[in-house]
Amino acid sequence: MSVILDLAGIFVFALSGALMGVRKRLDMVGMAVLAEMTALGGGIVRDLILNVRPAAFESTGYVLVPVAATAIVFFWHPHVARVMPAILVLDAAGLGLFCAVGTEKALGFGLSPLHAALLGVTTAVGGGMLRDVLAGEIPTLLYDRQLYAVPAMLGSAVMAGLYWTGLNGWHATLAAALLTFGLRIAAMRYKWRAPLARGVKPSD
Amino acid sequence: MSVILDLAGIFVFALSGALMGVRKRLDMVGMAVLAEMTALGGGIVRDLILNVRPAAFESTGYVLVPVAATAIVFFWHPHVARVMPAILVLDAAGLGLFCAVGTEKALGFGLSPLHAALLGVTTAVGGGMLRDVLAGEIPTLLYDRQLYAVPAMLGSAVMAGLYWTGLNGWHATLAAALLTFGLRIAAMRYKWRAPLARGVKPSD
Amino acid sequence: MSVILDLAGIFVFALSGALMGVRKRLDMVGMAVLAEMTALGGGIVRDLILNVRPAAFESTGYVLVPVAATAIVFFWHPHVARVMPAILVLDAAGLGLFCAVGTEKALGFGLSPLHAALLGVTTAVGGGMLRDVLAGEIPTLLYDRQLYAVPAMLGSAVMAGLYWTGLNGWHATLAAALLTFGLRIAAMRYKWRAPLARGVKPSD
Repeated sequence: MSVILDLAGIFVFALSGALMGVRKRLDMVGMAVLAEMTALGGGIVRDLILNVRPAAFESTGYVLVPVAATAIVFFWHPHVARVMPAILVLDAAGLGLFCAVGTEKALGFGLSPLHAALLGVTTAVGGGMLRDVLAGEIPTLLYDRQLYAVPAMLGSAVMAGLYWTGLNGWHATLAAALLTFGLRIAAMRYKWRAPLARGVKPSD
Repeated sequence: MSVILDLAGIFVFALSGALMGVRKRLDMVGMAVLAEMTALGGGIVRDLILNVRPAAFESTGYVLVPVAATAIVFFWHPHVARVMPAILVLDAAGLGLFCAVGTEKALGFGLSPLHAALLGVTTAVGGGMLRDVLAGEIPTLLYDRQLYAVPAMLGSAVMAGLYWTGLNGWHATLAAALLTFGLRIAAMRYKWRAPLARGVKPSD
Repeated sequence: MSVILDLAGIFVFALSGALMGVRKRLDMVGMAVLAEMTALGGGIVRDLILNVRPAAFESTGYVLVPVAATAIVFFWHPHVARVMPAILVLDAAGLGLFCAVGTEKALGFGLSPLHAALLGVTTAVGGGMLRDVLAGEIPTLLYDRQLYAVPAMLGSAVMAGLYWTGLNGWHATLAAALLTFGLRIAAMRYKWRAPLARGVKPSD
């Protein structure tokens, strides 16, 4: 079950990578590289910091699912772009899942709640940041003022807090993932925005 | 013998890094950083993922050869640029060597053939991607539609396949390296190109 | 004592990250990410290469000090920018400290003097390079011709040399840090510049 959720999260993240490839007119190789990086990059960075072999290099599905996502975008990208609102909802689900699972894994390796939450956020947003840097753009996360990292931070903090009070197991993971998902969806719907430094005018 | 080939591959990759530095009008420090990153970056990423100390930090030659390449480009870059066609052939040889050796090392650490091949490609193309990102450009690999990663993928796959059938040793490494080299040269000569997603017009 | 110096270095580096965030009109999240990356990035890369868990993920102060720096810049950035000359002096002190401490740690893990010095420089300049890449710019280090990496290289080399002759301990670390600091300050005051490749005209 958890494996299927993982692969679903990877699939959605890979779609966003491959779509970025289309938008930047990259070739098929570029699309596949962005798809793999977006889907697996966050988890790879997490595992490097935990000093274990990255999970992406021990699972066949993790590597092949982004290839499938690339193929789908390659042939049907106008349709994929048309269902973008649905993809944003799935992406919010992937965000929740990745930050909860990433925090949990880090806690299991003995990191403090603070550091585990930080690594959970890294898992969730690292791949998207790599995607944007490779595509020659400033990571969306840093400037678009949408709340994307903040829901992941809160979800990871709740996960770490529950674990710390002894409430671990799949209930805690699910609660943290749902909280992140709900906050992200609410942030999109109600256009909650991150503040700019005092006195800085928005550019848009 | 294998050490001399390694250093030759590092030298050629470092030349391309230092030349990028000249093209972007970087100073001597920038040239040296790009040379080191281009030459050593792919192998460092491979070794981080294998969870061992990067080979670049255990060999003096690996660090000093890019310094020598930087010095040559610093003083004689117009001549170096003039022999660019020869450098592209040497670069193809470096590509073949790095993907074969990288795949072999990963197999030796117990990775599956799929993951070993993926890491072999990373070894071969990772340094060039780092070079381009640091120079403020989208990695050439992602958009120029030249077949650069694809020969490395096929060579790494053949290396992994031979190893899997019990045919390891230098014959296999040589075969995989030569295959990559030949495909890359053929791709340059016959202008084989990677496809764009359906309906996307080429920008050039 | 050494912990306080470390945190001071992290604070100054984090200020430069958060200020870059203001300059690029990033939101609060972007400012915090740049502050953390600038302050901790170099040490994280060093520890990944040494194959140990990054110090940043074992210390609460390392993570919270950049948050404090972000808050200060968020509310008082015009004042912070006004004291920029003082910040540049503090940054030179951070540079000296980080390259000396980074080299020392690498020597303690058994790296050769050459590789330890290389890793010391990485510790000192890696965070700033990450900051610039994430902000969508070519790392200043590579092109601005100011001597920033060169003082760190010399300081790291002296640290490695002293250690190699048996002179380790805090005297050696202090000497290397002060040398780097002094060279960096002198380079700023006397406008020492790194050379461009032969025949390349400066763009400014």
